[in-house]
Amino acid sequence: MASQGFWSLGGDNVPPNTAGSQSPSTPRAWCQAAAQKLSGGLGSKLCALLNVAEMEKTSSELPTKPQETPAAPCDCNKPCNCPKASVRFSDLYSTDLLPASDGDAKTMSFLQEVVDILLAYIVESFDRETKVIDFHYPNELMQRNNWELQDEPESLDDILVSCRATLKYAIKTAHPRYFNQLSTGLDMVGLAADWLTSTANTNMFTYEVAPVFVLLEYVTLKKMREIIGWQDGSGDGIFSPGGAISNMYAMLLARFKMFPEVKEKGMSSVPRLAAFTSEHSHFSIKKGAAALGIGTESVICVKADQTGKMIPADLERKILEAKQKGFVPFFVSATAGTTVYGAFDPLIAVSDICKKYNVWFHVDGAWGGSLLMSRRHRWKLDGVDRANSVTWNPHKMMSVPLQCSALLVREEGLMQNCNQMHACYLFQQDKHYDLSYDTGDKALQCGRHVDIFKLWLMWRAKGTIGFESQIDKCLELSEYLYNKIKDREGYEMVFDGKPQHTNVCFWYLPPGMRHIVDKEEKNKRLHKVAPVIKARMMEYGTTMVSYQPQGDKVNFFRMVISNPAATFEDIDFLIEEIERLGHDL
Amino acid sequence: MASQGFWSLGGDNVPPNTAGSQSPSTPRAWCQAAAQKLSGGLGSKLCALLNVAEMEKTSSELPTKPQETPAAPCDCNKPCNCPKASVRFSDLYSTDLLPASDGDAKTMSFLQEVVDILLAYIVESFDRETKVIDFHYPNELMQRNNWELQDEPESLDDILVSCRATLKYAIKTAHPRYFNQLSTGLDMVGLAADWLTSTANTNMFTYEVAPVFVLLEYVTLKKMREIIGWQDGSGDGIFSPGGAISNMYAMLLARFKMFPEVKEKGMSSVPRLAAFTSEHSHFSIKKGAAALGIGTESVICVKADQTGKMIPADLERKILEAKQKGFVPFFVSATAGTTVYGAFDPLIAVSDICKKYNVWFHVDGAWGGSLLMSRRHRWKLDGVDRANSVTWNPHKMMSVPLQCSALLVREEGLMQNCNQMHACYLFQQDKHYDLSYDTGDKALQCGRHVDIFKLWLMWRAKGTIGFESQIDKCLELSEYLYNKIKDREGYEMVFDGKPQHTNVCFWYLPPGMRHIVDKEEKNKRLHKVAPVIKARMMEYGTTMVSYQPQGDKVNFFRMVISNPAATFEDIDFLIEEIERLGHDL
Repeated sequence: MASQGFWSLGGDNVPPNTAGSQSPSTPRAWCQAAAQKLSGGLGSKLCALLNVAEMEKTSSELPTKPQETPAAPCDCNKPCNCPKASVRFSDLYSTDLLPASDGDAKTMSFLQEVVDILLAYIVESFDRETKVIDFHYPNELMQRNNWELQDEPESLDDILVSCRATLKYAIKTAHPRYFNQLSTGLDMVGLAADWLTSTANTNMFTYEVAPVFVLLEYVTLKKMREIIGWQDGSGDGIFSPGGAISNMYAMLLARFKMFPEVKEKGMSSVPRLAAFTSEHSHFSIKKGAAALGIGTESVICVKADQTGKMIPADLERKILEAKQKGFVPFFVSATAGTTVYGAFDPLIAVSDICKKYNVWFHVDGAWGGSLLMSRRHRWKLDGVDRANSVTWNPHKMMSVPLQCSALLVREEGLMQNCNQMHACYLFQQDKHYDLSYDTGDKALQCGRHVDIFKLWLMWRAKGTIGFESQIDKCLELSEYLYNKIKDREGYEMVFDGKPQHTNVCFWYLPPGMRHIVDKEEKNKRLHKVAPVIKARMMEYGTTMVSYQPQGDKVNFFRMVISNPAATFEDIDFLIEEIERLGHDL
Repeated sequence: MASQGFWSLGGDNVPPNTAGSQSPSTPRAWCQAAAQKLSGGLGSKLCALLNVAEMEKTSSELPTKPQETPAAPCDCNKPCNCPKASVRFSDLYSTDLLPASDGDAKTMSFLQEVVDILLAYIVESFDRETKVIDFHYPNELMQRNNWELQDEPESLDDILVSCRATLKYAIKTAHPRYFNQLSTGLDMVGLAADWLTSTANTNMFTYEVAPVFVLLEYVTLKKMREIIGWQDGSGDGIFSPGGAISNMYAMLLARFKMFPEVKEKGMSSVPRLAAFTSEHSHFSIKKGAAALGIGTESVICVKADQTGKMIPADLERKILEAKQKGFVPFFVSATAGTTVYGAFDPLIAVSDICKKYNVWFHVDGAWGGSLLMSRRHRWKLDGVDRANSVTWNPHKMMSVPLQCSALLVREEGLMQNCNQMHACYLFQQDKHYDLSYDTGDKALQCGRHVDIFKLWLMWRAKGTIGFESQIDKCLELSEYLYNKIKDREGYEMVFDGKPQHTNVCFWYLPPGMRHIVDKEEKNKRLHKVAPVIKARMMEYGTTMVSYQPQGDKVNFFRMVISNPAATFEDIDFLIEEIERLGHDL
């Protein structure tokens, strides 16, 4: 056996905890900072709102705790009526909280204190005067705080300090100028739902342990299938840990549908398979093929046109070529909303080819699937109702907190047959309720996180029309950006024509680069522009947007808008910021 | 295109919302219920604590909202000084919250109201007088509330009603008498950390979007590898969405290590493989083999002794047999803590065989891995430091909120080589920071939920010694249970000897069944006892414990203790309850 010396590991040479000096470490300091920050009397209101519970907590403490310091008046420099008392978290440890026998009040004080920190962070995140990111290089960040794990417990005060430090260096993904990923923004109802989910702390595998959540998953998946256009919302589906896994499920189902013996006998019982997807599709198709033992070489790239859409004629050509080489085409993944260009493959044409060659037709709508919620934009997915399976990530364009990804399947029962292993300790067949609600055996996972409640509660709060208007607004903003830069000096669009999703792909050419004639020289220099501007954005912390090369195209910006907090002014700001930070390059 | 009629789907024939009458629907009603429920003045304190913020919120509302009803006195029937005012959530919608321009105060009121609901639920969950579950059959639960999704938005008041209804029918997984799964209990620091994680709402794929969380994952995985006993904590690892996926990663890595060409060429480039695991192992090994294209028939079951431990001699025999049949043994999964018996396979003996035949040695310690934190119990995993990979789920025995599962890998760089696809839009190679922190490309997922913070923060709060004492206590409780029932009338143990983990497996024989001589008749009747008692437990809602058959053994109870809230009295209660509910059978 290895030495048991780990109980003393990490205890030495720990850098001093500097977080306290970096962020307000006491409620009073926070109060002061908040009050100074906010204008129009909101500061003092905020102060009063967040702090009054503390005061009451102290005054309602059991009389057996005479050592409590009495409430001290706040030293805000604004009139704020702030009597936040110092609850002595430095004397408390996690063992003082529930289930400790007298842990109720302490637990509520502690959780309320955490919530106060979170509420302050939330308000700050939506404030344009706040940085999106307080960036530090990894080795620097490692040294800025004591992140090590120790043998001995820390006081709850230290825990609160760690919470503040963690948020100080976090990306403010709710910030109206955070455009870096396909998933941006923070929905308040979704957040509330996620807090509730954490508190319920259960598992999706059986109705027995998650009765409500299992029902809500059933209701929501059915609704999503109705929106796809499947008769009466029939079919199957599951919420999985992200679009890559949803796509992997689809590939797994397609293989099992054609060769059910693969489950027992593996790929050695199956001819050499071929899957098809466009050169602009998501890398998870190849990743899935590698994992499933199909191999990345069996994923055949279909050409896309200049706007990023799959060319159906090339798909048919590649299918025929593969058949001639002895491969069995089993899976086509068309993309509804490609990652970089936001292109929608022509689903009707692709589905015709799939039907002709008897190939499973999957639609990867991880990014673009949400456009089905918009009467104005859902035509871009015409033909999706012909799909055998659809990936649709509400955590992207619908701003549901991470993660929330659905795989919808047209054929009922297939997932169960494909994945079930009949674990008798979990899926007992002699339970006293309807076992069709024990959905765990159709999953690849055993335990499965509850991802449904945040989507369901947001849907209730917004209604379908609320999601629709949120999505329509993001598309309006991207059209505004496109119109603003398409003829602006110093900008070149990566592809012609109005983007179909919120992706706007462009190069910014600093003035000194605009008149270079030599194309190779120009591209060489241009390739470095976006990374430098991005690095500066992160240093200043003002905004974040993604960039990448694609094929033979050098680094360009890919702007995407899924953040419900963004406005026209934020788009203007982005352009100004790119020019400010890139002007000298 | 399918009809767009879904905007009006679900709007008709909706059952009336009955939740309001099932659970307190107004703050005042809640206050009343809480005050009545709790004794010793705590009710009124709770009331005051939770409600005072509301009052202050109202009094600090902007003067432009004159329509607010003035604070009404609470109608508690105890003297509780409860001035909870009615914030008019019925007039507010999600669009009134942030990012709405004047959404700060409304957002904080709404989130605070949700938190008040959650705090009340938490306090209730730990109260032994509360039911573990308010059980309803699926069709009944479906009708007890309006769970449908509509076109139109609901008011925030309706949203709060939905939150209350959801919790009303949820399982109280924190309840001291909830023993149903390997994951039980609710840690307050873990919960706080999960609330923070939701608020930070980011993704693990790059340092760019999750700088702190990526560092904390690095720190924590290294610490876990040190505890496993790997030199200086070197190696690799990832937090994955559950033990099944962690085990699948291990199998994927083992295959890639032996046949790296499988990534590009698939299983057709590889000989017929064979994996080995004991007959008591988790079904995820077979599930993984099915998904990876290896096939369930290639997972060869090794015999276990009567206590559930893998028999090394049988492993060697099965490996030789497989080789003779032309299979290539590539993977052995030994289990540290089997799901039902809690058995620990003899890791040293198994590792010797793996070394002899050059087979990847995986330890599935999803359930038992946490015993490595206990100086008293870690000998049960002697030899784990010889493993090539280890699954370890802190969401089980360490009570980290769901989900938190780690795969630890001895060889550095292998995961990256096995899974990377070099997506240029995400893992740009010209970023300005150290790219080794962009861990996303070694994952099967693209987006990955932040599962690390709750474990990290709990570790800080408890220290290693805190986890140790929590684990030791659970094992003490199970020993207490074992000693209590092993010679008690009406009980039979499923296997001889003291359990190694907290699993205690036993039959309860009602008095009328104790003298049946015919073994077949006895087993036939005994098989029905546990399901009936379990159903009654759920109807009464007093406790929950799992049961299952195993091999030729009819249904028996599998008691497991991972719930830090459980005490000796709760064990006594369980036994009394089984006898009370099963006496007449």
